[in-house]
Amino acid sequence: MAGSTFGKNFTITTWGESHGKALGVVVDGCPAGLSLCEDDIQAYLNRRKPGSTRFSTPRKEADEVVILSGVFEGKTTGTPISLLVPNTSQRSADYSEIASYYRPGHADYTFDEKYGFRDYRGGGRSSGRETIGRVAAGAIAARILKELGIEVCAYTKAIGPVFIDMARFEKEAITETATAMPDRLASVQAEEYLAACMMDRDSSGGIIECTITGLPAGIGEPVFNKLDARLGAAIMSIGAVKAFEIGDGTAAAAAKGSENNDSFYADENGVHKRSNHAGGILGGISDGDTITLRAYVKPTPSIFQEQETIGRDHKNRTVQIKGRHDPVIVPRAVVVVECMSALTVLDLLMENMTSRLDRMVEFYKK
Amino acid sequence: MAGSTFGKNFTITTWGESHGKALGVVVDGCPAGLSLCEDDIQAYLNRRKPGSTRFSTPRKEADEVVILSGVFEGKTTGTPISLLVPNTSQRSADYSEIASYYRPGHADYTFDEKYGFRDYRGGGRSSGRETIGRVAAGAIAARILKELGIEVCAYTKAIGPVFIDMARFEKEAITETATAMPDRLASVQAEEYLAACMMDRDSSGGIIECTITGLPAGIGEPVFNKLDARLGAAIMSIGAVKAFEIGDGTAAAAAKGSENNDSFYADENGVHKRSNHAGGILGGISDGDTITLRAYVKPTPSIFQEQETIGRDHKNRTVQIKGRHDPVIVPRAVVVVECMSALTVLDLLMENMTSRLDRMVEFYKK
Amino acid sequence: MAGSTFGKNFTITTWGESHGKALGVVVDGCPAGLSLCEDDIQAYLNRRKPGSTRFSTPRKEADEVVILSGVFEGKTTGTPISLLVPNTSQRSADYSEIASYYRPGHADYTFDEKYGFRDYRGGGRSSGRETIGRVAAGAIAARILKELGIEVCAYTKAIGPVFIDMARFEKEAITETATAMPDRLASVQAEEYLAACMMDRDSSGGIIECTITGLPAGIGEPVFNKLDARLGAAIMSIGAVKAFEIGDGTAAAAAKGSENNDSFYADENGVHKRSNHAGGILGGISDGDTITLRAYVKPTPSIFQEQETIGRDHKNRTVQIKGRHDPVIVPRAVVVVECMSALTVLDLLMENMTSRLDRMVEFYKK
Amino acid sequence: MAGSTFGKNFTITTWGESHGKALGVVVDGCPAGLSLCEDDIQAYLNRRKPGSTRFSTPRKEADEVVILSGVFEGKTTGTPISLLVPNTSQRSADYSEIASYYRPGHADYTFDEKYGFRDYRGGGRSSGRETIGRVAAGAIAARILKELGIEVCAYTKAIGPVFIDMARFEKEAITETATAMPDRLASVQAEEYLAACMMDRDSSGGIIECTITGLPAGIGEPVFNKLDARLGAAIMSIGAVKAFEIGDGTAAAAAKGSENNDSFYADENGVHKRSNHAGGILGGISDGDTITLRAYVKPTPSIFQEQETIGRDHKNRTVQIKGRHDPVIVPRAVVVVECMSALTVLDLLMENMTSRLDRMVEFYKK
Repeated sequence: MAGSTFGKNFTITTWGESHGKALGVVVDGCPAGLSLCEDDIQAYLNRRKPGSTRFSTPRKEADEVVILSGVFEGKTTGTPISLLVPNTSQRSADYSEIASYYRPGHADYTFDEKYGFRDYRGGGRSSGRETIGRVAAGAIAARILKELGIEVCAYTKAIGPVFIDMARFEKEAITETATAMPDRLASVQAEEYLAACMMDRDSSGGIIECTITGLPAGIGEPVFNKLDARLGAAIMSIGAVKAFEIGDGTAAAAAKGSENNDSFYADENGVHKRSNHAGGILGGISDGDTITLRAYVKPTPSIFQEQETIGRDHKNRTVQIKGRHDPVIVPRAVVVVECMSALTVLDLLMENMTSRLDRMVEFYKK
Repeated sequence: MAGSTFGKNFTITTWGESHGKALGVVVDGCPAGLSLCEDDIQAYLNRRKPGSTRFSTPRKEADEVVILSGVFEGKTTGTPISLLVPNTSQRSADYSEIASYYRPGHADYTFDEKYGFRDYRGGGRSSGRETIGRVAAGAIAARILKELGIEVCAYTKAIGPVFIDMARFEKEAITETATAMPDRLASVQAEEYLAACMMDRDSSGGIIECTITGLPAGIGEPVFNKLDARLGAAIMSIGAVKAFEIGDGTAAAAAKGSENNDSFYADENGVHKRSNHAGGILGGISDGDTITLRAYVKPTPSIFQEQETIGRDHKNRTVQIKGRHDPVIVPRAVVVVECMSALTVLDLLMENMTSRLDRMVEFYKK
Repeated sequence: MAGSTFGKNFTITTWGESHGKALGVVVDGCPAGLSLCEDDIQAYLNRRKPGSTRFSTPRKEADEVVILSGVFEGKTTGTPISLLVPNTSQRSADYSEIASYYRPGHADYTFDEKYGFRDYRGGGRSSGRETIGRVAAGAIAARILKELGIEVCAYTKAIGPVFIDMARFEKEAITETATAMPDRLASVQAEEYLAACMMDRDSSGGIIECTITGLPAGIGEPVFNKLDARLGAAIMSIGAVKAFEIGDGTAAAAAKGSENNDSFYADENGVHKRSNHAGGILGGISDGDTITLRAYVKPTPSIFQEQETIGRDHKNRTVQIKGRHDPVIVPRAVVVVECMSALTVLDLLMENMTSRLDRMVEFYKK
Repeated sequence: MAGSTFGKNFTITTWGESHGKALGVVVDGCPAGLSLCEDDIQAYLNRRKPGSTRFSTPRKEADEVVILSGVFEGKTTGTPISLLVPNTSQRSADYSEIASYYRPGHADYTFDEKYGFRDYRGGGRSSGRETIGRVAAGAIAARILKELGIEVCAYTKAIGPVFIDMARFEKEAITETATAMPDRLASVQAEEYLAACMMDRDSSGGIIECTITGLPAGIGEPVFNKLDARLGAAIMSIGAVKAFEIGDGTAAAAAKGSENNDSFYADENGVHKRSNHAGGILGGISDGDTITLRAYVKPTPSIFQEQETIGRDHKNRTVQIKGRHDPVIVPRAVVVVECMSALTVLDLLMENMTSRLDRMVEFYKK
């Protein structure tokens, strides 16, 4: 693929730029028979919509999704589902200045080097709005996972120095706090931290954590399509993510084997592990335990301090970015991490259906 | 792919188990005209060969590679290159005990859950020997990159609590120290740490760092095939890797925008950045600067302490692993990280050749 | 892919049903810098539009294409190009009868068997309208091929028993005759034949021929991605095509080697062949000569005679198809064959750019 | 893929040249639990082995297959199966003459144009020996299909002007006649025709027919991965095949709708069709009826008459091919057509397992 398609069995192809006519996604490989309407998808899109809190850009995008194909009488038909979100606030602004230089921390320079020129209106294809297609498609994946008893749940784990306390975990808080933190107290502290960043015309990074529960053991393919490798590809493909980890992650490098191994034990409910340092994956295959992953997100590169850079003419100059930008990317990226995880897990669940001959024979012999 | 093929343009398909007749790889999509002989590949395989230091298993495998196809009169022909490494020390050991239980930290349980049974001899397909095919193929990729002026260099950054000091970086030390550290002093300290681990019948994790220099700006595809996403998939697909990061990685999450942005400047040698927090990637596309990535490796799960686990019969029991196992995976995995990075970068260099119409027209109009 | 994506380097993903809100395609991997506007694409779509002659359905579809992304200031940007064609004449007809039975020669029965139910309005995804996305994408491919000096030209070779005479070949006639025949006399005869078919409430099959000129030698990959194998897949994927051939095609099976071999000779203009039984392909790779292929198209299955069939309840019954249907599929499928051929050839031209190391080094060393 | 990998779910990657050390294939995605030993595969390879009749080259290749991985205790493990066939009769012949010119009808010229040079020993990768990997892999696919109640059967339908009479069809004759014809009388006539061709230092083309029985309705994906499109790609990828057809094939182009439509009817045994002009495929999806396809094979290009051609220096010259070559490709290609068909059908059976949500839920809920 040329880079806009993700997945092998449940494939999504996204398209659209921040200031084009619309953005969208084509979902191919969705099983027939899933109940689906626009509201199911809109609920996910609303979680990434700008303008909902003081930490997101006031740009008022309706971001309303339309289902153009693949659904008939309220059910998916097995044919491609085309989803479209019009860009309603494409103002005919003056972009001549932004076109003339390369913003530090942005993809302006690299797009120009790759393609010879770029759509300089608001980031073009490298804008965060690119994730609209991912979220719309992920909403469908999440609905199928639900039918299979699997739940994916992402939330903000940290903003700058402020970490959540899992003892205060409250699921509803994820969609209710301005930070997407499941800990209301930490959220207040993080909001104070962000307010201070804004005062300094600066921005902050943060951490997103995601758990996948209900996934049966056996999902993920050995070698190159390990569950962690596919999740890593999915999460690292989200703009601004600079690190990815599973389970104990980076901490495993400092641990000893006796600390890091998770002992198995069995009881009347089945097989369990005494701990879950592995994050639910052994040898690239799910072990039936909760999958835990983390995405480390860099600070918003658009800050209002004067910065050194070069022009398109490759002459040195300074820039002072204007407009309004979120002081942190994390809260709106939480649903993107959730959706990319859902898409990955669903794709590998499909892949796994041919792992055993007896199950394949049973499937067709009925 | 079912999981044993990697790459879109320069594709490798690996096969083989730790105790089967042989292991190997088929490289498809290698350009015609590259000088190639077995020694070119053997040099890379020797870097991951067991038995070379006191921290690697004394199992004596020759691991000698044979080129079976795709090379004619010393040059690649453009057709698939089949490489084979015979397993010379497949002893007909008694595996009945190991077959009867699930080792903590290993893929025994997950393979059984996925496939219904497993090749229990020494880990089968989930063994570290699986990486032989990756390294053999990576050696070819590295040779092509060299022709393009690109160098990939991996080394041990840390073992347990012992980190290298970049001020003492010595490239030759990577292949000369027992730890693959480029810092001889740190290596001595790490060796002491590992000796202590072995005394405790324990093992250690560590960190591998990899740099890619000489890569032109513009490599990597927006959205799902970002350079960092592809590298992430490649590195996370290596067994025992639990985290992956680019540039400042996890540290970016705690940084402010003013600290994390890299300013551009230009001089008579071209475009540069004042810093490289980004690790040479902006918006998923290389910016011409050094690519820096890190792999966090868990401790060897095979430790000699008694461990709690379950049998294939799902009854609780304890195990005491026997045999000889490396107390740390990192030193022998360094070349695997280097090879997976080389394969990824080469694949995306090929992908990039169609990014501009004028360059494509020029290619064919000559 | 789940079946709606075609191509490896220049990939197209089509979507849409005959009576949904719209149909469209996402083109990914288009090089940056191609001049492109809606008119360029519309010209191709108009060639497959219904309602233009008495042999096509009078359903009045505007079939007007909109470019939603991937083009900026009149040029492709290298990012995905989303093209959309609204369905303007979705009447809220009564489809209850058509939903209740399986039309002979149609995909009604097989869709129900595969998915459990189907979008029964006008054929749904199996409708000829599905080809709108192919043609819109093919128009872009054809423009790129033109830049490379390559031309793809398809036309009707036969309708029922009426064949064109190549001695009367007139390129303009392809778009001017009602049959898409390049021979005006044969076209008149074919029109008479079709009129007779319509009187009999019957329909006719036919043959489409396609030539590709200007293609350099060396295009196509050995073994599974042979140029003829890729063309075969492309053409056979068009609904109603029942046979595919290259060069002499089926006639080669009856020939002797002395008749079928094409002798090479050279003159001051380069290498040529005395004949072209091979249709420009040797060992799956283009030889620099004209590529010639043919698609054999079955008669329109919708005929107005009473036919035996079964209902959805699997009870025997008869049907009498109503509405208006083309008595022949061929004329409107000509541009589809042309577009699928263009897409295939472009994809393999891209693939071929990495066939030689020296050319790859030269590409990047500049 | 760069062209040596086939299939999406059950993938095969072939490698090897006619005069290299060995040829082989890696099969990835084979379900675990299939009983498999070398004899199962050897039986298929023996059907394409040279030297068995007077119409095949007397080159004595043992063509003995070795299973190198993926099978443990007589069963497939779900990991890649590596199969290798050594080339035993690689004589160090003098190939300097064959290296100096381009044989008409062969891929010598096109390989040189594509790659800059070629392995000129006996055809290299474009040799018929390339099909060894296909047949070895196809043998595994056929065994899995058998478990699912599906049988693929190919045979020679015609050699030059001699056609079989289906009234004399005898399945055993396929492997017993020198022509792979299921009609012993026709086979005798074809042998006489071939003897005459050999007297004239000439060669003959022919037709291979293949039937697939027991395939359930619903297999094949709409649009680009139609069952007929995938079969077309598979069969056209076999060297020397110049045309492909399904069901009535080319004859459908001359037919009327009233002749070509197959009426459905139902009885106590289920749904049937009164005829099978469609060859068991409607809208690219199997309809439960027998699949029938045909491959049209060109005459062996190596004939012993003097032929006009050019040298590598692009100077005009004549050639007189020496050695021994089959006067017809068809009999030994029969098993290749059978194997490629089996591989295609199995791949699409796997693909189809995710077509309905209810079936997927049932698969995982157990």
